[in-house]
Order: sequence, then structure tokens, then C-alpha cells
Amino acid sequence: MFEILHQSKKSPARVGKIHTPHGVIDTPNFVAVGTNGTIKALDNTMVTEIGLQLMFCNTYHLLLQPGTKVIKEAGGLHRFINRDLPIITDSGGFQVFSLAYGSVANELKGRGNKQSGNLVMKINEEGVLFRSYRDGSKVLLTPESSVEAQKDLGADIIIPFDELPPYHIKNDALKVSLARTHRWEKRSLDAHLRKRAGQAMYAVIHGGIDLDLRKQSCETLTKLDFDGFAIGGSMGKNKEEMHSILNHTLPLLPKEKPNHLLGIGDIESIDLGVALGIDTFDSSYPTRAARHGVALSWHGPVKLTRAENANTFRPIDEKCSCPTCKNFSLAYLHHLFKAKELSALSLASIHNLHFMVDYMADIREKIAADII
Amino acid sequence: MFEILHQSKKSPARVGKIHTPHGVIDTPNFVAVGTNGTIKALDNTMVTEIGLQLMFCNTYHLLLQPGTKVIKEAGGLHRFINRDLPIITDSGGFQVFSLAYGSVANELKGRGNKQSGNLVMKINEEGVLFRSYRDGSKVLLTPESSVEAQKDLGADIIIPFDELPPYHIKNDALKVSLARTHRWEKRSLDAHLRKRAGQAMYAVIHGGIDLDLRKQSCETLTKLDFDGFAIGGSMGKNKEEMHSILNHTLPLLPKEKPNHLLGIGDIESIDLGVALGIDTFDSSYPTRAARHGVALSWHGPVKLTRAENANTFRPIDEKCSCPTCKNFSLAYLHHLFKAKELSALSLASIHNLHFMVDYMADIREKIAADII
Repeated sequence: MFEILHQSKKSPARVGKIHTPHGVIDTPNFVAVGTNGTIKALDNTMVTEIGLQLMFCNTYHLLLQPGTKVIKEAGGLHRFINRDLPIITDSGGFQVFSLAYGSVANELKGRGNKQSGNLVMKINEEGVLFRSYRDGSKVLLTPESSVEAQKDLGADIIIPFDELPPYHIKNDALKVSLARTHRWEKRSLDAHLRKRAGQAMYAVIHGGIDLDLRKQSCETLTKLDFDGFAIGGSMGKNKEEMHSILNHTLPLLPKEKPNHLLGIGDIESIDLGVALGIDTFDSSYPTRAARHGVALSWHGPVKLTRAENANTFRPIDEKCSCPTCKNFSLAYLHHLFKAKELSALSLASIHNLHFMVDYMADIREKIAADII
Repeated sequence: MFEILHQSKKSPARVGKIHTPHGVIDTPNFVAVGTNGTIKALDNTMVTEIGLQLMFCNTYHLLLQPGTKVIKEAGGLHRFINRDLPIITDSGGFQVFSLAYGSVANELKGRGNKQSGNLVMKINEEGVLFRSYRDGSKVLLTPESSVEAQKDLGADIIIPFDELPPYHIKNDALKVSLARTHRWEKRSLDAHLRKRAGQAMYAVIHGGIDLDLRKQSCETLTKLDFDGFAIGGSMGKNKEEMHSILNHTLPLLPKEKPNHLLGIGDIESIDLGVALGIDTFDSSYPTRAARHGVALSWHGPVKLTRAENANTFRPIDEKCSCPTCKNFSLAYLHHLFKAKELSALSLASIHNLHFMVDYMADIREKIAADII
């Protein structure tokens, strides 16, 4: 399933290919987030044209709308959303625990306090009972029901159900959480292996910012029959903490299996993670930045609404081959954002996603040349 | 410039071709509205791919953002928005008078009362002085400055500056308004003819719901060197009044010149107008309906968010060749609307605009066969 084409002589970075039922993912690669089965402001034919090889969809959202049974009836997620290239889904755990513990972003960075998540009714060994934000109905998410949902969706890569502990957790509680996560991941794997159906399952390494627990998580999960390893949970408050955690964790994972960094994919983190040996990164950053008028470029982010762009009649990047740069000027994009036109959001998203595709191809070339 | 290919034996309907510097417009045809130089939720490469032959842009909006001088500097509107096909611009009169008289839609239908437009500072024989809604700066719009702005934009078809009288206007006041509109249109034409630059100018026939004044407007304006005739002002409260006004007005216009119905382009009005001899119709209805989840079809409007579409795995129309129907199901569109995804708005807009292109082609075939 995973083929390493080149191991850098300079760093743990490597160039590889992940083979899936829907084709190849060249690694290292960026994975765009299409929570509801669509990258925001783009349709899936454009996403394919841009060359995005792997798309991340969220089981939690799809479970509540339109329901995974509808998608199964449609012939699976690929068919429902008209995407012929690989898809990865998560377990729903991340979202459901963010309901319980408040804003995930704040929580992971240690900025927030534990909030009472009034949509979560019960968390126990079985799983999590919560109310749908859509219709108020009760939903029980367990390792088995999460895997069943992900079987209905039929993504190429799936994720076991895990507990996302809050950042402000005492060490004893983190140990208890980690042990449960490991039991849940084992139950998820068992459910998956009963009906493999061509799907791969990546374990999620937890342990938060505690390096001993990260080690314990790697030791426990690498003994099981997972196809790859995703690194989840808190990565600390800043890039230094993240570097320390990844630098400690990655050597504990088997080299011959692909790994993924969950929910982190800004340029700085990609540069940092690739050099430590990360294969794939998912993030909504490039498309969210686009919707806020920020275009990515080789010279850093470009704020499209800056006054100087009002009469700059060249594209964002003269050398970029994306449909936006081929067809439209900075001045026009500036105007569309100022006029609050929806097409501004699409055109900027096309460029940013295309930029990520180019950026990762460049990274692969640099690893192949032992520059990274 | 205008070529009549077939005059129906059954009605005043005709099939023709309008030749412009940016190519041909087959008539009768639908003209989509791209107020700010973009059809809402679509980019102009897609609009061209759909086959829309004429796009309507609003001088008032482009004057205030990004400014017609910026667009002139870009090389004109076609180049600025990357559209190689024909464009028509209006004079800005419609919007500026809607500031003075309140909601245009309400006003035209006689639902509203005259409101004090606090952005309009002065209306006199010279023109209209108003404040920009963007930066509060004072803008003087006159027949000459409107034409100058439209020369900077460089659309294929331009419109003279006119006064839009309120619906609730006394007959004497309407006569005064009409006389001024005729003077303003003459001044606009003179300004245009001093620098024709390949552009065509359509007069705007006024007179509101007063048939005698409509006749007077036709007699006055057809004596001047206009290339075509747009029918503007109030068309009454309902389709019957509109039919009566058009049925009275169209025979008073020269057959050998193209005519246009301003701001009206729903299916029922198109059917009614074509049979009376209207050549082109502009309307934001199909794209606005799309953004509200209404898809146009040969069997009438389809509400995409209806529960029954949640698991309807066929496209909006099996026979439709639009990118949306070729790639996505009703169930997926239903889901995208429910999930409030921006791609829903684009995909529905693509279909509706493509439907209008198909609908008008069908109308032309029916006229050619003397069925209409």
C-alpha cells in the first residue's frame, strides 16, 4: 500500500506513494478539508482538475447531514460527491469531544476552559451519546458505529474512534483517557477488519504533550494491524512544542507505514513536519485563508484587499498555472472582494488549493534531491 | 448590426442576430445580470462555457467600485473581467433614482411610497448629484458623465442616461419627467456619437403605464440615430398591464432594429414578450432563484431543498447537458443547500443559466418553425 521512493540523506523526510482503491497519493502531500463532502466554495470537478490527490471529509457532519445511510444508498461517498480520487474520513470523535469540551482550537492551544457541552449527554466506556445539532435526535457514537458509518461512506482511508482529551487535563486523567482511546481504537480496528472492503485504517497516536504517554501510545498501537499512523491530540501551544512532540514521536513509528498529521497544514508546519518525516497533512487553512482574502504565494501570503492591488493588472503569480491566475488579475480579485462577490471566494480558493498542490510537488522534488 | 433571419408567420416574434465587436447575439435571447462584472457565484470562464452570449453590467456599481477609470486602465471591462463575448451596460440612472425613490421593485409595482433618498443630494436639468454609498464622496451623474463612464467600460451596447419616474407619479409630473428623459437621452446620444468606438446605443422608451406617453416616447426617440430600443420604466402591476403596454409599444418601434426589455426575464414574461417581438431580456431572476435553492426546469421550478430530493440520485434534469447535471445528483445538491455550502449556490446557478441558454435556443427554433 505504501511505497517509499526516496529516503532523504539529509533528514527523516521521504518521498513515497500511497496506493488506494481510487489511485495514488504522492507523499509528502497536502490534504484539503471538505467537511460536508465539498471543499468550501469549490465544486468537486474543479478540485479534481486542480490535482488534489486526497480529500478529508468529516464523518460527524455527514452522519448528521445527509446521514451516512443516504450516502450508502447513493453508492458511497465517492459517487455521492462525484470524486474519483482518494478520500479520507475521520471517526467523528474529534467533533463530538469538541462539543463536550468547547472550542477545539482554543482547547488544543490551552486557551479555553472546559465548558459544559450541553449537546453531549453521556460519555462512558461504550461511547458518546449526544444530540444532533440539526434535529435534536439522540446519536450514540461508539467505535463500532463510527466504523460502520465510515464503511457506509467507503473512504479509502478511515480513522478509529478516539477520545480527544482537553488540553487542561491532569496527568492521571490523561492516562485514563489514553487507555480508553487505545481500547476504542482496538475495538474500531476489530470492527474494520471484519469487513475490510479495500479500506485502510490509520491509528491515531495520542498522549497530548506528555512525551512518555506519546511513547506508550506508539508502542501500544504499532503492535496492532493498522495500515498507517495519524498523529492527533494536542501538539502544544506553539511550533517549538509541536516540533518537540513530533521529533520524539516519529522515530517510534514504523518507517514502512505512512503517517499523517491531523488538522495541521499551514506552510510553516508543513516545512517543519516534512523534515521530521510526516507524509500527509490535512488543514482547512488554505481555503479558509482564501475566503478571508488571503492568497498563498511563494513569497508569503498576499492580502488581496490591500489598496495597492486595486490597479495591479497582473495575476497573483505570473508563473502560477491555476485557472484563477491564468484568467484574472489581482485588480479584478481585489474588486470582487470589495464588492463582496461570491466568485471572489471561489477564485481565491482555487488559487490557494492549486498552490498547495504545487508547493507539495516542490517539496517532493527537494527531498528527492536531498535538499530537505 | 441587426439581421432578421426569420419573421414568424404566427406572431410578431422574430429570429435574428445582433452583430457586435465581441461576436454575435442570437435573438431572442436571455441576458444574465453581472452587476459588478461577475454573475453572482460564477466566474466568467464558466459563464462563457455555459454559452451566455450577452452579459449585463451596471455602470452605477462599477463607477463606485472599482471605478470606471481603473477599468479603463485595465484595458476596458471585457479585459478586466476576462470576458470575450458581448457586454451591455446601463447608464446608472435606474440605480441612482432608486436611491431617490426607495426600492425600485416596490416602486415599479406601486407598492411603495416615495421615500426621501438621503444619498441623493440634488436632481436638476444637469443631472443627479449623490453620495457614494462606499466612501461618501459626491458623484455627479449626467448624460455626458454616464456616457463617458460607459466609454471607459467599453461595453458593446450602452444605454443613455434617463430618469426613472416613481410609479405613484401624477400624470403632469410624468409628462415633465418624460420630456427631461428625452432631452437627457439626446444629450447622451450626442456624447456617444462624438466617440462611437464601435459601441451601439439603445434608447430607453419611457412613459410608464400611460399609453399615450409611451407612443410619444417612441415617436421622439425613433427619430434619433439610436441602434436599438430598450423598453424601460414601469410595466404596471401585473402581466396583463405589461402585455398591454408592450402590445401597444412594440408596433411603434422600427422592425429593423433590435429591442430589449429592461430588467424583466422570468419565463412567463419571456414567453409573453417574445410573442410580441422582444429580442432580448435581462434579469437576475434565474441566478437569484438558484441562490434560493430553486432550479429551473422544463416542468417548472424545482425546489432543491424539498425533503423528497434528499435521496433522489438523478440529476435535476436527465437530459440537461450542464456541468451540474452531468456531475451531481439532486440528493447531493439538496445536501449542499442543507449544509449551507457555497458550492450549492454555484452549482444551482450554473444549471439555471445553462437552462436559460437552452430555453432561448428552443424559443428560436419554435419561431423559425412558426410555432410561436
